[in-house]
Amino acid sequence: MKIRGVNLGNWLVLEKWMSPALFEGTTAEDEYYLPRQLSKEVYEARIQIHRSEYITERDFVAIKAMGMEAVRIPVPYFLFGDREPFIGCVKEPDKAFHWAETYGLQILIDLHTAPMGQNGFDNGGICGVCKWSKCPEEVEFVLSVLERMAERYGRRKGLWGIEVLNEPITEAMWNTMDVPNRYPAADAELAEGSGPNTLEFLRDFYCKAYDRIRRYLPEEKYVVIHDGFELLARKDFMREEKYRNVVLDTHQYLMMAEADGCEQTVPAYLAYIKEHYEKGVEEMQKYFPVICGEWCLFNSKACCYDTKGGQSVLNGVEGKQTEVLSAEEKTDIYRAVAKAQLQAWEKGSGYFYWSYKLLVDTVNDSGWTGWDSWDLGRCVDFGWFPVPKGLHERSTR
Amino acid sequence: MKIRGVNLGNWLVLEKWMSPALFEGTTAEDEYYLPRQLSKEVYEARIQIHRSEYITERDFVAIKAMGMEAVRIPVPYFLFGDREPFIGCVKEPDKAFHWAETYGLQILIDLHTAPMGQNGFDNGGICGVCKWSKCPEEVEFVLSVLERMAERYGRRKGLWGIEVLNEPITEAMWNTMDVPNRYPAADAELAEGSGPNTLEFLRDFYCKAYDRIRRYLPEEKYVVIHDGFELLARKDFMREEKYRNVVLDTHQYLMMAEADGCEQTVPAYLAYIKEHYEKGVEEMQKYFPVICGEWCLFNSKACCYDTKGGQSVLNGVEGKQTEVLSAEEKTDIYRAVAKAQLQAWEKGSGYFYWSYKLLVDTVNDSGWTGWDSWDLGRCVDFGWFPVPKGLHERSTR
Repeated sequence: MKIRGVNLGNWLVLEKWMSPALFEGTTAEDEYYLPRQLSKEVYEARIQIHRSEYITERDFVAIKAMGMEAVRIPVPYFLFGDREPFIGCVKEPDKAFHWAETYGLQILIDLHTAPMGQNGFDNGGICGVCKWSKCPEEVEFVLSVLERMAERYGRRKGLWGIEVLNEPITEAMWNTMDVPNRYPAADAELAEGSGPNTLEFLRDFYCKAYDRIRRYLPEEKYVVIHDGFELLARKDFMREEKYRNVVLDTHQYLMMAEADGCEQTVPAYLAYIKEHYEKGVEEMQKYFPVICGEWCLFNSKACCYDTKGGQSVLNGVEGKQTEVLSAEEKTDIYRAVAKAQLQAWEKGSGYFYWSYKLLVDTVNDSGWTGWDSWDLGRCVDFGWFPVPKGLHERSTR
Repeated sequence: MKIRGVNLGNWLVLEKWMSPALFEGTTAEDEYYLPRQLSKEVYEARIQIHRSEYITERDFVAIKAMGMEAVRIPVPYFLFGDREPFIGCVKEPDKAFHWAETYGLQILIDLHTAPMGQNGFDNGGICGVCKWSKCPEEVEFVLSVLERMAERYGRRKGLWGIEVLNEPITEAMWNTMDVPNRYPAADAELAEGSGPNTLEFLRDFYCKAYDRIRRYLPEEKYVVIHDGFELLARKDFMREEKYRNVVLDTHQYLMMAEADGCEQTVPAYLAYIKEHYEKGVEEMQKYFPVICGEWCLFNSKACCYDTKGGQSVLNGVEGKQTEVLSAEEKTDIYRAVAKAQLQAWEKGSGYFYWSYKLLVDTVNDSGWTGWDSWDLGRCVDFGWFPVPKGLHERSTR
C-alpha cells in the first residue's frame, strides 16, 4: 500500500498564520479565543464564508490534476456542533466525500484537536493548554466523536481511514518545543496542570479508539495513530492479532531537524533526512505501514535566516523583508529537499504534504519570505515540487 | 500587441451565482441589496473574509503558471469607499499590483459597475435598473472614479490599461436580453425610466473618460472601451489623432450565440465563431486593437440541455441533476470550442477568459452540471483549455 496526498490544513481547524484575516481585530492566537472575542454574528459570518471559500470542488479537481491520490482533512472536536460557542462543520466533510468520490480521491479524516488540548500548540486549538488526557469525561467525549465519525463515514467509498488524534505530545517534544514559552497560554489558570501525555495513556487511548471505531469501519479502512513525536517508541503498540490495518503516522519537518541541531545547509538537510527520516521510517515499517502525515519543503536555508524552529513574525522572529536568493537558487534548494524527503517516504507507505494552501502574502506582508513553501499549490506552480504522475495529469469525473 | 489573460470575476464585484454563500439568508439577487439586507457587522465580516480569501498571492502564481500574461480586475464604483453602505476595496488592487509586478503579470483594471446601472444585469450591481446615463451627477461621479484610478495606478509597471466601463448596454442587446424580465428589479420605482444607453451618450462618455484619465496615464498604457454589444458599430468612434492606444473590448459568449439562433451543436458553434467572432474581430481590428475581454467554453451542448441563453437554476431554468456525457465527450466539445475561439481572438489583439474561478458546486448542488466550464482553473486542470505556453510554465519571481 502506498498513498500520496496533501493536507487540507486551515480549512476546518484554523491556524492564525495561515489565515490572518479571520483573526483581524482580535488578540486571539488560536481558535479557542476567536468566538470569545467576536460577537456571535461576526464569528459566524467569518467562519461560514471561510469554510465555503477556502476549499471547494475546484480544489479537488486541482489536487487530482497534481497527481495526488488523497487528502487528509483535519477536523475539530466540535465537528458535530455540540460544543458551543463553536459552530459545527460536518457539512463540509459531507461535501468533500462527494467531491473525492467524483474525482477519484481518497480521504483520511483526522481528528486534529481535543478539548483542553492534546499538545498545547496553536493548531491544537488552544495555546499552552494540554491537559485533555487528565480529564476522563473529555477523553470519553473524543471517543464519542470518533465513533460518530466512523458511523457517518465508515462505509464511504471515498474513505481511506480515520486518524484518531493529531499530534498528542509526549515528553521529549514537550521539552524540545518548550511549549509553555513558545505557545503561552492566554489564561494561566486554565493552563494549570498542563503537561505532556504519557506513553501509557496513549497506548490505552489508541486501543479504546480502535475498538470504538472498528465497529463501524470495514476492515480494509485504515485506523491511523500518530507517533506522539517518538517514531521508534511504538514497536510494542497494538501488536495483538485483532488490530488490523493500523497505520503509524509520523510528522517530520526540517524546522524540527534544525531544532534538533541539524545545520542549516542543503547537504546537512539531505544527510539528516537520510539518517533520521529514511532510516526511521524503514525501521518502523516492519511493525506498521508508516506514513509521513505532515511534512513540507520549508527550511531556514531557503528563508535566508534562522527561523528558530519554524517561528514567524507572529512569534516575534523577524523574517527577511525581501527575497535574497534568485529564483534558481530557491528552486535548487527546494527540489533537493523534496527529492530526498519523497525518497524517505517511499521506504514507508506514503505521505501527506502540509499543506495544500495557505493565505500567507509574501509580497505585501513583511517577514514572510520563504513561507510560501508550505503551500503545495505554489510549490507545484513554481516547479519546486515534482508532480508525481507526470505534469498535471488531467482530472476526470 | 497581443495579450492573453483571465478575469478575476466575483472578487471585488459580486455575482450571486458565482459565490452563493455570501448571499445566504437574504433574498438579494445583486450586490446593491446585500448590505441592505444584512446587518452592518455581518455584511462587513462576509465581504472582508471573501476579499481576503477569494483571490490571493497564490492565484497570481497559478495564473502565471497557466501561461497567462495578464488579469482583468473588475472593480465597483464604490472602490474608493465613498458610497455607503458599500465598503471600499482599493486595498485589494493595491496588493494585486504588487503580486502582478512580482510575478510578471499585467493588469487591466475594469470599472464594472456604475450607480443606477449601465446595463441592468446582476453583474452591473443592480438588477433591472439602467438609468445611470440619465443622471448627470452620477456620470460625473464615474468620471471622477476613473480619474482617481488613473492617478493611483497610471504609472504602475504592472498596469496594462484601464477599461472605462464594462458592458454599457445599447438597444439591440437590451431587447435580446429582455432585461426587465430576465433581471426583474426589486424596486419598481427605482427602475422607472430604465432603458438602453444611446450610442451618442457612449461616444461622448468615452471621449470625456479618455481625456480625464489620459492626463495621468502614460501614452503606452491602454484605454479600453467596451463595444456596447455592437462590435461593428464603433468604426467612427475616437478616430481623431489625439486618441492613442484605445483598445476596443468585445464580449462574446456562446450562450448569446445560441440566443441569436445558433444551433446547439459543435459544428454550428464552430461555424458561428468563424462567421461572427472571427470576421467581426478581423474587421474591427482595422480600426482598433480588439480584445475579447470576456468569453468562455460554456455552452448548452455540453450541459445537455437548453440553458436558454445561459440561464441557471437561479433564473428558474432547471439544469441536469447528473452528468450525461462521458469525460471524453465533454473534453472533445470543450477543446473544439476553445480552439476555434482562441483562433478568432488571434485575429485581434488577445483575450481575457471569464473567469479565473467560481465557487459553483456541480457535485453537491443540483442543476449546475456543465457550469464548471466558466472556471479557467478547472478547464485547465480538466484538460479542456490548452495552456498557451506549454504545460504549466513555472512561475518565477
